[in-house]
Amino acid sequence: MKRTAFFISDSTGITAETLGQAMLAQFDNLELRRVVLAYVDTADKARSAAARIDQAAAEDGKPPILFHTIVNQQVRGIIAASKGVQLDIFSAFLNPLEQALGRRSNYTVGRAHISTIGAGYEHRINAVHYALDNDDGARINRYDQAEVILIGVSRSGKTPTCLYLAMQQGVYAANYPLTEEDLESTALPRPLQPHRSRLHGLTIDPERLAAIRHERRAGSSYASLRQCEDEVRMAEAMFRRHRIPCIDTTHISIEEIATKILVDKGLR
Amino acid sequence: MKRTAFFISDSTGITAETLGQAMLAQFDNLELRRVVLAYVDTADKARSAAARIDQAAAEDGKPPILFHTIVNQQVRGIIAASKGVQLDIFSAFLNPLEQALGRRSNYTVGRAHISTIGAGYEHRINAVHYALDNDDGARINRYDQAEVILIGVSRSGKTPTCLYLAMQQGVYAANYPLTEEDLESTALPRPLQPHRSRLHGLTIDPERLAAIRHERRAGSSYASLRQCEDEVRMAEAMFRRHRIPCIDTTHISIEEIATKILVDKGLR
Repeated sequence: MKRTAFFISDSTGITAETLGQAMLAQFDNLELRRVVLAYVDTADKARSAAARIDQAAAEDGKPPILFHTIVNQQVRGIIAASKGVQLDIFSAFLNPLEQALGRRSNYTVGRAHISTIGAGYEHRINAVHYALDNDDGARINRYDQAEVILIGVSRSGKTPTCLYLAMQQGVYAANYPLTEEDLESTALPRPLQPHRSRLHGLTIDPERLAAIRHERRAGSSYASLRQCEDEVRMAEAMFRRHRIPCIDTTHISIEEIATKILVDKGLR
Repeated sequence: MKRTAFFISDSTGITAETLGQAMLAQFDNLELRRVVLAYVDTADKARSAAARIDQAAAEDGKPPILFHTIVNQQVRGIIAASKGVQLDIFSAFLNPLEQALGRRSNYTVGRAHISTIGAGYEHRINAVHYALDNDDGARINRYDQAEVILIGVSRSGKTPTCLYLAMQQGVYAANYPLTEEDLESTALPRPLQPHRSRLHGLTIDPERLAAIRHERRAGSSYASLRQCEDEVRMAEAMFRRHRIPCIDTTHISIEEIATKILVDKGLR
């Protein structure tokens, strides 16, 4: 059963897509074509979107599923007249929310959907630059500004996790790669010693690590299973010895790793 | 009117928070305390969450607003018995979706909410590493792999936008900072010449740019308004001369910049 899902918005479409994908993930083995239509904010664009919906309905022989966050009334009307099943996110929640808050929403285009300009936003951008400046132990002298410092062997997932924490949560996250010299010592690496409470370890299955490293440097000793096994074993021993909490990144996504670290460190 | 909003999930809480914040953004001047409770996946954690909700109800003198995506039935029951206004995201959409698809959802904890392990996920992580390797024109020899190349003056927003495109969309995005030498020439910088169709310009209000640069290097000529005005004027002239599409980043968020570029380049 081939079918199409549309995520439609007169703004970025991030809410429609996030919610829609979460709902669709509750169904196994859906064969779905997924189409995001962002900034559908004029009658012309709405008519062109409706034409695409109707065309998908004809091709699939089934009405497409539409997740939408559309504020503009004219655009809503045009989409509502298309041959899709409407899952209207604003209608589902704005009424109960207006009742709970005892006031009307402004329901205006361009109003957020996302945290945008303002103190919180600038903080997130600064956090991204901080993560870049403090990636891979580059400037260990700024660790005192870090809210969390991720440690682990090369390619265990530190950098993407730091960037996600910065961009999505505005968290100042640094990272420190464990070198062979670090791993062979029973002491905590010196630059990390003043910051023990902010450390969080990442570990990974050695076979998975070898596969990731192989993509970067095929056939190198760096990518050999033997080397990966040794490094991971020593890193995990270090985490245990110094009671550093640790998360296995092998089977979970960056979003999940980041959220678990935030919960663990009480940063939310 | 002080009040509390909770975003609750037995998984990461990303869907609950994204949707909830989008809905709340439709109301002006809300004085809200916002609390994310992620991984509420046991009866114990649910009772502790319910206690926090009831305490907020008592302190605020108003029931808190609860946006939740909870699959676990026992956890749902405990949260439902708390003194909050329930905005139950799964209930609102899973029933209509089951009808539209003509099948039952599996409704199991840990099922996505997010695109997780798999080809798409690895592609996103590879895109993040690509963005880092190709940041600030560091390795211009890999531009042929880029789906989009952002160009603009220093601190116009290129790096965070590239990282967002990579992490959230799996887009291979490189960036090239326009130097004074580049700006004084009427030709397109040589490394960019083979890739014209993939270029996208970023511009920014010179006063805003001066403020951003000032935070980085206070009092430098780099941060002077005069310098910022000159650079921005020359960059905009270059975009016009070579018909490179351009977006003003002054008043919009990274999410919006990224989405507009995707729409413009037909990358979604």
